Amino acid sequence: MTNSQVELITIGDELLLGFTVDTNAAHISRTLAAAGVEVVRRTTVGDEADKIAAAVGEALERTGAVITTGGLGPTSDDLTKPAIAKIFGRSMKLDEEIASALEQRWRARFPNSRFPATNRSQAEIPEGARVLTNRHGSAPGIWLEDDKGRWVAMIPGVPREMRGMLAEEVLPRIKVVAGGSENAIISETLRTTGIAESAIAELLGPNVLGEQDTETGSLSLAYLPGIAGVDLRVTAKRLAPARAEKLVREAIEKLRSLVSAYVYGEDDTDLAAVVLEKCRSLGLKLAVAESCTGGLLGERITNIPGSSDVFLGGVIAYHDDVKRQALDVRAEEIERYGAVSEQVALQMASGVRKKLGADIGVSITGIAGPGGGTPEKPVGLVWIAVDAWETKAQRFHLIGDRAEIRQRAAQAALEIVRRALSNG
Amino acid sequence: MTNSQVELITIGDELLLGFTVDTNAAHISRTLAAAGVEVVRRTTVGDEADKIAAAVGEALERTGAVITTGGLGPTSDDLTKPAIAKIFGRSMKLDEEIASALEQRWRARFPNSRFPATNRSQAEIPEGARVLTNRHGSAPGIWLEDDKGRWVAMIPGVPREMRGMLAEEVLPRIKVVAGGSENAIISETLRTTGIAESAIAELLGPNVLGEQDTETGSLSLAYLPGIAGVDLRVTAKRLAPARAEKLVREAIEKLRSLVSAYVYGEDDTDLAAVVLEKCRSLGLKLAVAESCTGGLLGERITNIPGSSDVFLGGVIAYHDDVKRQALDVRAEEIERYGAVSEQVALQMASGVRKKLGADIGVSITGIAGPGGGTPEKPVGLVWIAVDAWETKAQRFHLIGDRAEIRQRAAQAALEIVRRALSNG
Repeated sequence: MTNSQVELITIGDELLLGFTVDTNAAHISRTLAAAGVEVVRRTTVGDEADKIAAAVGEALERTGAVITTGGLGPTSDDLTKPAIAKIFGRSMKLDEEIASALEQRWRARFPNSRFPATNRSQAEIPEGARVLTNRHGSAPGIWLEDDKGRWVAMIPGVPREMRGMLAEEVLPRIKVVAGGSENAIISETLRTTGIAESAIAELLGPNVLGEQDTETGSLSLAYLPGIAGVDLRVTAKRLAPARAEKLVREAIEKLRSLVSAYVYGEDDTDLAAVVLEKCRSLGLKLAVAESCTGGLLGERITNIPGSSDVFLGGVIAYHDDVKRQALDVRAEEIERYGAVSEQVALQMASGVRKKLGADIGVSITGIAGPGGGTPEKPVGLVWIAVDAWETKAQRFHLIGDRAEIRQRAAQAALEIVRRALSNG
Repeated sequence: MTNSQVELITIGDELLLGFTVDTNAAHISRTLAAAGVEVVRRTTVGDEADKIAAAVGEALERTGAVITTGGLGPTSDDLTKPAIAKIFGRSMKLDEEIASALEQRWRARFPNSRFPATNRSQAEIPEGARVLTNRHGSAPGIWLEDDKGRWVAMIPGVPREMRGMLAEEVLPRIKVVAGGSENAIISETLRTTGIAESAIAELLGPNVLGEQDTETGSLSLAYLPGIAGVDLRVTAKRLAPARAEKLVREAIEKLRSLVSAYVYGEDDTDLAAVVLEKCRSLGLKLAVAESCTGGLLGERITNIPGSSDVFLGGVIAYHDDVKRQALDVRAEEIERYGAVSEQVALQMASGVRKKLGADIGVSITGIAGPGGGTPEKPVGLVWIAVDAWETKAQRFHLIGDRAEIRQRAAQAALEIVRRALSNG
């Protein structure tokens, strides 16, 4: 039995109204899970003191350990601290040290402006609370604990500040109060692309993980279809770490053997990183020619740190004139077959390879929509070509909206390069 | 007083463990808010029947109206329906119509494979439930309602299916059961860029919306700093629609007048769309030259449907050889000033403008990190240049990790073009 369970409460009208996607919640959950701390419930409430107090109160009753994000800023939506102080029966008091640090910070930035009284509220903390240092912004965090060991950690909602404080201030303290947990949540993911969820399900069959899946209730398989492909995630819970790791590893290897042709990596692996690493190990240089993706493939590749020793660059050939001038695509081919065609895709790939002096050229030309489709060439039609030691083009009919089609096209282009490298 | 309040419960270990970012929640909240339905709390639980039942039960007690997403798929994490049926005291029964539709669908796709028994569970629905048709996938949704008018709508977690079913099946039903609400949540956002949150706060001063802010408690201002800049959101709640709209509009105009130089749009406006529209109205063609952003600026621009009548394309000049060969940047300038310099940025902008025959060339060259920084040229240093009727370069020191620096650089480049267009 583990006592390292927490609840997460994210606070903010912008979250509840959907204006902001709650990426903080995912980051916190992943970070805690990696440390063997399980987020058992997540709640989002708006900037209203009674709603915040209700959610935190229930979570304290239920789980006794709560992290909140948001509601600590200098602007008028600063409600979290007093609302939570009330639950613990504590009053608020001004922390002179924080107040003077805030004032100094202000003066350094705005020497000609008076420190506003509203900003002093950031320096008010519940009696008996511990201040969590914020090295990444102005609003400090708060750790509040009662005599039964129940606690709430309050950290800001600004992602950069939240991430820093979680790692530096909150996680070390959770490990102390939770004690050494016997059990960790062990999870590994196998990443596939170029195959549908239902087709994988058929390849794997039902109950592929065998008796472990049902008998102990501790090993589970989840299908996670996304733009990049279908991820297969195996998770072990409430098992001794050594046994959990062994079971998860065995399950992953079993799954891999059943769908190996579609597997490009594990866990957070980005297909772009796989392609870069293969190119690097073979000493090959890569260049891209993009029409409908407009730079997205280059962006994916250069998002990987260190890509500059493999990736030379590319041409965004959005207009057909650029395809001709910058990539030497023949005008008569564009006219005869259209810009979205096997012929043009092949010429774009070989054009960028030659122009930039690369070993591998890869190209994308397609119809991302919403407009521009015809019965013969509907929205979602994409031609992708690679020019290297082998030259080939592949036709795709991709589903989704404009953004999804473009993302799927970039992923498919990377997969074509990966397969060419595996064959080469 | 409005009765159109709902709670949202998103179900899935992948959400709770943070492997998936909960974008569904934001979409549902925005869609409902636009229809005057307020999401008052959001909860995420894992794939465990008792946790699902507890969260749904509490939400029914509290608010009486619940939407759940996830847990309806064909794979083994299908727990939602029986767990919720139990709360309502209903048993599960097989819906023959759904079962045969599922089986037909399977046979059409996998003619040589037997329809698996596990997939039949998708056809089991609680007694007395209404089936919500899923035109976008196989798992149907469920609407369950008790004699007190409390209801739960269960829809799948796959984003495309969720979006379709929310609009086609759930929202129309909510409007019927909630009745015509007197009040809507009215919210408008002013988008700024190139200015820090604290500097805006100083320009606006405290309590900028005046008495309305405190007296009625119905009009609120939120500062939403993000990669694109700082959004200022004004929200009116629990007011008659006409009055709410008037107050929000007046507040937005007041804010605009105070920070006008930094405002590029309202609500969901993308700066790329603003730039494209300005170019379009002036009949100008745009081209980009990107080093550290690697295609991201082109991606931002081409993400806007219809960009092809303004945007010609660009050169991803990641390697210095590409800067020389494809953009005519002089080798001696790269050697003397470095690739990240005012001189190289200016030559990239004018090079791409000339090569692609554009009216406006914009360039980005910088150090996105994590490696590659020096004391003189630290990570985050970015030069951005524009070449049109005026030619200028601007130096930035951008904060954040690699992805953030690249995103901020693309946004800053768009803003430089916007300002050049405003002056031109």
